[in-house]
Amino acid sequence: MKQLLEHARIIAAKDGAFYPIENGFLGIDGDAICYIGSTLPEDADTYDTRKNMSGKLLLPGLINCHCHSPMVLLRGVGSDLCLQEWLFDKIFPVEDRLETIEGGIKVGSELAILEMLASGVTSFTDMYMQPESTCEAVLASGMKANLCRPVQCFVDGESFEDNYRAQQAIELFDRYHMAGNGNIRIDFCIHAEYTCKDHITRKVSEVCRDRGARMHIHLSETKKEHEECKQKFGMTPAEYFLAMGTFENPTTAAHCVWAEPKDLEIFLEKGVTAVHNPTSNMKLGSGFAPVPEMLARGVNVAIGTDGAASNNNLDMLEEMHLAAILHNGYHNDPTLVTPAELLRMATVNGAKCQGREDTGALTVGKKADIVAIDLSKPHMQPAFDPIVSLAYQVQSADVCMTMVNGKILYENGVYLTMDIDRIYHDYQQVLTKLYGE
Amino acid sequence: MKQLLEHARIIAAKDGAFYPIENGFLGIDGDAICYIGSTLPEDADTYDTRKNMSGKLLLPGLINCHCHSPMVLLRGVGSDLCLQEWLFDKIFPVEDRLETIEGGIKVGSELAILEMLASGVTSFTDMYMQPESTCEAVLASGMKANLCRPVQCFVDGESFEDNYRAQQAIELFDRYHMAGNGNIRIDFCIHAEYTCKDHITRKVSEVCRDRGARMHIHLSETKKEHEECKQKFGMTPAEYFLAMGTFENPTTAAHCVWAEPKDLEIFLEKGVTAVHNPTSNMKLGSGFAPVPEMLARGVNVAIGTDGAASNNNLDMLEEMHLAAILHNGYHNDPTLVTPAELLRMATVNGAKCQGREDTGALTVGKKADIVAIDLSKPHMQPAFDPIVSLAYQVQSADVCMTMVNGKILYENGVYLTMDIDRIYHDYQQVLTKLYGE
Repeated sequence: MKQLLEHARIIAAKDGAFYPIENGFLGIDGDAICYIGSTLPEDADTYDTRKNMSGKLLLPGLINCHCHSPMVLLRGVGSDLCLQEWLFDKIFPVEDRLETIEGGIKVGSELAILEMLASGVTSFTDMYMQPESTCEAVLASGMKANLCRPVQCFVDGESFEDNYRAQQAIELFDRYHMAGNGNIRIDFCIHAEYTCKDHITRKVSEVCRDRGARMHIHLSETKKEHEECKQKFGMTPAEYFLAMGTFENPTTAAHCVWAEPKDLEIFLEKGVTAVHNPTSNMKLGSGFAPVPEMLARGVNVAIGTDGAASNNNLDMLEEMHLAAILHNGYHNDPTLVTPAELLRMATVNGAKCQGREDTGALTVGKKADIVAIDLSKPHMQPAFDPIVSLAYQVQSADVCMTMVNGKILYENGVYLTMDIDRIYHDYQQVLTKLYGE
Repeated sequence: MKQLLEHARIIAAKDGAFYPIENGFLGIDGDAICYIGSTLPEDADTYDTRKNMSGKLLLPGLINCHCHSPMVLLRGVGSDLCLQEWLFDKIFPVEDRLETIEGGIKVGSELAILEMLASGVTSFTDMYMQPESTCEAVLASGMKANLCRPVQCFVDGESFEDNYRAQQAIELFDRYHMAGNGNIRIDFCIHAEYTCKDHITRKVSEVCRDRGARMHIHLSETKKEHEECKQKFGMTPAEYFLAMGTFENPTTAAHCVWAEPKDLEIFLEKGVTAVHNPTSNMKLGSGFAPVPEMLARGVNVAIGTDGAASNNNLDMLEEMHLAAILHNGYHNDPTLVTPAELLRMATVNGAKCQGREDTGALTVGKKADIVAIDLSKPHMQPAFDPIVSLAYQVQSADVCMTMVNGKILYENGVYLTMDIDRIYHDYQQVLTKLYGE
């Protein structure tokens, strides 16, 4: 099927640079973009549908590169506590209960997918237990996701075969990698340096390499974690993972708040993507990731929301806004992190981070993963430069259409592949089991 | 007329403390709240209208305590430049043209009012040229505002009588103060320490005191301004204004980013309200206002958006979100600025700052300045604690009703007192005159 989107403002891309088109036409053939231009395509009469997108801005789908999607069920739990108290007294006990509730993880992911689709996310990278449940939710929705089974190991002598998480990770990969025509990709995951013993970290890194897979880790989120690693190993967490062979895999490193200049050199050499999670880093008091320095060195920086327990939403446009302004404030320099860098971080850098080179930009030949922004609300008047407007002005409720592989999944409040009433009903049931009446 | 809002979640207040009601009833008699409770009022049959607010959260109207409303016409102009280049090369030339365009300032304020009403603002404090135009826009809308004519003086010998801005300020006060049954309040305004000569600053402060009015100033926004004042006068800007007699008036001091501990003591002693403008302070690279320290000392802290040229929107819920998380990140402490402190800053502290003790809280006897939040969207699932949800979770598009003095001004995308089509038409005309085709 061929679809033509007409009369839109379009943030197109060519040779890695954005070029906005004011009254543009975007053609889609099947699941891919086949035409972008400022005039009707010559073969306009071969299109099956034509959709007037006047007053709308088209941009590449946003890619949320670090999330714990089912944690929407823990949204707002234990707010404003110090980190240890929050985790051990509030979050972990609920998670223990959640693990035992049938359908709990799945409906959490469904709720997260509803939220992400409504805010322009077309693909996300997730890290949580029972990822096969998230997998099923993603497949049914038509979205894309990189999922993983996080591996932890707290026992010195534990064999790789006895580590049930590692075994589940392999099973997950073998069962789901490239499912849904590649909508699902399975990554491997070492939860963090401080939650996994060396021998298991080495072995998971090897298994990942053997399968040609990608790796997802937490890295230098808090000063405590970063400093304790240096004390314990005489290495930063980045140096530690380098020594363990983890970075022989294309790696997604979440947070990187306390990464040092030598760590950034490692990221660059090894092609590690640093995922910036500004809301979570602010809310939990973790600190300011060295984003301007990473960008200046050429590190691939992407953006993530983290889980809703520490955010408390999954709003990529809010993360982009924060990434646009925070570093200016921290360094007293209004010129840092430009809107174009920001949009790359949220789209093409994210696609690279996920191993999805076939998406992340509005370019002929790429998958039609497209978001439309309604420009009609008062806060969007005027919107001279669409890329600047995305950085500072837009809000996620302005998203009026989210399309993945040429298929509209969300439009004007309506979900085309998901039953919001059923999901709300099921989630209420799970909530009652989780927290009581 | 008596109206009853039924079955809402309500953030009520009593004796300065919030108490959320889950399935509550709020009665309005004329322009004031006459009942709040968890049961139907006994005289329910005396109400003229009853409105089902199930699934909605009622909170006090948000008060934007520092804005330059007509600057929505300069939204996104000269983004990502250093401060001097942005101001002198981009902003000032446009403002010079704007001043000469008939109806320009007024339609700018109208556009700003549309944006603020849709995001739950019931009252704002503004600082801009031609404030009588803003005044007329506010009066027609039914909103509340504290307006002023900012005074500047760059000439040593200039007499008070020859300073046309000061004379306009007096005329404005005499003509508009308490207009629209007090919806309009006129403040006096010294633009900033560095833009007004001593003798005029003293005289404006006196005139303000003679009239029993309030004062609005910029204070210690940038490090440069703060340090240059110390070099020039041997005093911080706060000490300078104290010496000039400015603080003998109840004063709204915008920004206060570089305020020192001794300045905070002055604020406390003199009842100065510090207005926190986090987005603007981050975007322009100004820095982090000492909000946790101010709150700990008991300074009255309110929240503002600043103008849309440096924000780039007028979204108080976004400012609240930033105020909730920024200081945690800056001080590496997740316990700073609690959701309840934040809501007070955006409501009752703002009312105090504006001299409107009759609003700012949902309490019997207060004016019915009320906002309703739609809790139905996926990102609001779950919302256990409404005050926590307001701080971290909500977005301004969730505002579904804005009521001022018991009158609904905005509901579900519809403006009841303003003609959005006419305003959009007029603003496009002004934009063309301002920037060309």
